[in-house]
Amino acid sequence: MDIDVTITEMARAARKAAREMARCPSSKKNEVLRCIGDLLGERSAEIRTENQRDLAKAREQGLSAAMIDRLTLDDAALSAMIDGLREIRALEDPVGATTASRVRPNGLEVSRVRIPLGVIAMIYESRPNVTVDAAALCLKAGNAIILRGGSEALHSNRVLADVIGEALRRCGLPPQAAQVVPVTDRRAVEALLRQEAFIDLIIPRGGEGLIRYVVQHATIPVLKHYKGVCHVYVDQGADLDMAEEICFNAKVQRPGVCNAMETLLVHRAEAPAFLPRLARRLEEAGVELRLCPESLGILPGRTPAQEEDWPAEYLDLILAVRVVADMDAAMAHIARYSSSHTEAIVTSDYERARRFVREVDSSVVLANASTRFNDGGQLGLGAEIGISTSKLHAFGPMGLEELTTTKFVVLGNGQIRT
Amino acid sequence: MDIDVTITEMARAARKAAREMARCPSSKKNEVLRCIGDLLGERSAEIRTENQRDLAKAREQGLSAAMIDRLTLDDAALSAMIDGLREIRALEDPVGATTASRVRPNGLEVSRVRIPLGVIAMIYESRPNVTVDAAALCLKAGNAIILRGGSEALHSNRVLADVIGEALRRCGLPPQAAQVVPVTDRRAVEALLRQEAFIDLIIPRGGEGLIRYVVQHATIPVLKHYKGVCHVYVDQGADLDMAEEICFNAKVQRPGVCNAMETLLVHRAEAPAFLPRLARRLEEAGVELRLCPESLGILPGRTPAQEEDWPAEYLDLILAVRVVADMDAAMAHIARYSSSHTEAIVTSDYERARRFVREVDSSVVLANASTRFNDGGQLGLGAEIGISTSKLHAFGPMGLEELTTTKFVVLGNGQIRT
Repeated sequence: MDIDVTITEMARAARKAAREMARCPSSKKNEVLRCIGDLLGERSAEIRTENQRDLAKAREQGLSAAMIDRLTLDDAALSAMIDGLREIRALEDPVGATTASRVRPNGLEVSRVRIPLGVIAMIYESRPNVTVDAAALCLKAGNAIILRGGSEALHSNRVLADVIGEALRRCGLPPQAAQVVPVTDRRAVEALLRQEAFIDLIIPRGGEGLIRYVVQHATIPVLKHYKGVCHVYVDQGADLDMAEEICFNAKVQRPGVCNAMETLLVHRAEAPAFLPRLARRLEEAGVELRLCPESLGILPGRTPAQEEDWPAEYLDLILAVRVVADMDAAMAHIARYSSSHTEAIVTSDYERARRFVREVDSSVVLANASTRFNDGGQLGLGAEIGISTSKLHAFGPMGLEELTTTKFVVLGNGQIRT
Repeated sequence: MDIDVTITEMARAARKAAREMARCPSSKKNEVLRCIGDLLGERSAEIRTENQRDLAKAREQGLSAAMIDRLTLDDAALSAMIDGLREIRALEDPVGATTASRVRPNGLEVSRVRIPLGVIAMIYESRPNVTVDAAALCLKAGNAIILRGGSEALHSNRVLADVIGEALRRCGLPPQAAQVVPVTDRRAVEALLRQEAFIDLIIPRGGEGLIRYVVQHATIPVLKHYKGVCHVYVDQGADLDMAEEICFNAKVQRPGVCNAMETLLVHRAEAPAFLPRLARRLEEAGVELRLCPESLGILPGRTPAQEEDWPAEYLDLILAVRVVADMDAAMAHIARYSSSHTEAIVTSDYERARRFVREVDSSVVLANASTRFNDGGQLGLGAEIGISTSKLHAFGPMGLEELTTTKFVVLGNGQIRT
């Protein structure tokens, strides 16, 4: 099989299917999602069998328990996918909405109308549930999708793709609207990244290496985040009980995700009172602290922070801590080291809260709330397909609306330019 | 001079200046624009002298009259720039607006707030007026800009950059908010395209070759259009007087621009009546017709169209013509050959007008109006910095709002995730 030819044919077929999806009314798109859910139930034994093939190979290859966990499609995972489909079905269809309109002095009626993006390629790693979640979001927004998951999940992804294709066919829609790349060769990714004629957007999700590779090689627009180096700044005069709850939640509730806190910045005036109580709580939960010289003075005997700790995304029970002279110093630290993902301030001061949320240049900026809220569901977008930390098109969590764009529709009665 | 080092330092300085521009109130940004206008007047003699150096070189090198015309900064060109600045000053500042907000069940107040993109690099060819127009739009939207014009305009661009820098300084803002790359070596472009750490967006404007080069080499998001292969479809039952006016305007009023018509599609039922009258008018204006076999039957003795005429952007007094069986055939032709730029239908039929504007997948779709209206000013956006035919972030003409993005601002009172 020539991979380039295969991928080009898939992309061409997706473009054709996308034209049909773009015209598809909401009721039919919802029917597809309902049908995918039904088929996941009906074909669960088969899905489990295919998933077992991936799991057997994963165990053979000695993959970590965490990897195997993410790969597993048990009853709970299947139920979660079915629930996810129900949620997406309940979301309002963004396609066709007029987002702005005006009548020009010459009588032209100009509107901006929301339309699907077209063909979206999703490149991701081991989690097979992404296959269903991403396909459902893209289809609901009227797009076609090409899915390229990791080799560890190939059998699971193939059967899930087959389920989605069957649902599309049953509803009279082209199964090419959701295709899984049948090979996991790196060359399949390279070939995808060159399909500028047929693919409108690439969304890579996974490790920083994969994402950098995609950005380096794509001539198609990419939405992505490399990493989340999220900061909490505890301001002078902050409610320290609140600060403790927020910091503990941001670091410990789920340390392996991109919106977990990686660096704590504390105002010098609060550090002596705040750091010991927070350290006690964090260390009880198994968190290792990496401390700047000043915080090390307050919490002796811990690990000193090195320069490489400030830009680090630990994704683990590790926290870098720095004492700062004031909010300007905190914002300067953030401007230098943040990944533009999520930053929070804990403060009681009106003007500093206002300045922090206005001036910090990250996709989600919070006052008096945990960084863990950078999530499409939590912020009210419904399900999300990922988080973007580059500013074009989407900055922050991407929901249904971010899977669309607008075109200009102009209605006239013979207007010409003079 | 090491070009990589120079460009990296420029980009780093632009990033720093962008932080200051992002905080700058509208009144001060408008003051900068006013000041640029004043200085263009005060320093006009100097600007003309520098422009003469470029013009002398252009004549020496035997550049075409059209190129020399675009390069010339005479009184009219300077006045036009000053008028443009006044228009941009009058536009509403998009920065800081809340575009959506909701209160979540847990009490979190979530809003999306419009912010500048950050640092924009503009890569363009010979027109020095772009230097001032683009800088004014980017500054008004709170961004910093790096301008890399063509070597033919180097002296003109340098003095214009100096004017803009002086205006920024006079208003207490960093002159690094608008910088002209002082070398026109291709390596300067390559170096710009690698500044992912400091530059948020690249906008190339010029020939397709330049734009493809930028897309190929950039790891930074690019907004662009390669070309405009714009279609007008004259439907069965169309008002043929209206159709004639629209087609004549779309082809002849300014044939060298991207929103001029390049291909005419005519319904079979109207072709015998419509083509002869339109041909008479177009040919009087010097238009060469390239005809499909069926239209050649109606208008014998003209040039037959070849396959390469359908995707061609002539930018000249040439028109490809094809007779089609119905609107579906017209839309299929457009789906195959269009550049997603601008397409128009001339029709009297309600349902076909509705289907055409809904189903044609181009950045501007018109009913009963000339393709020449794909322009930021004409569509009511105010001045435009370019037109995008890729769907991410902006699809169609890009005005002030397209030079911004939104971030999420989340205000809480101690919320954590459970």
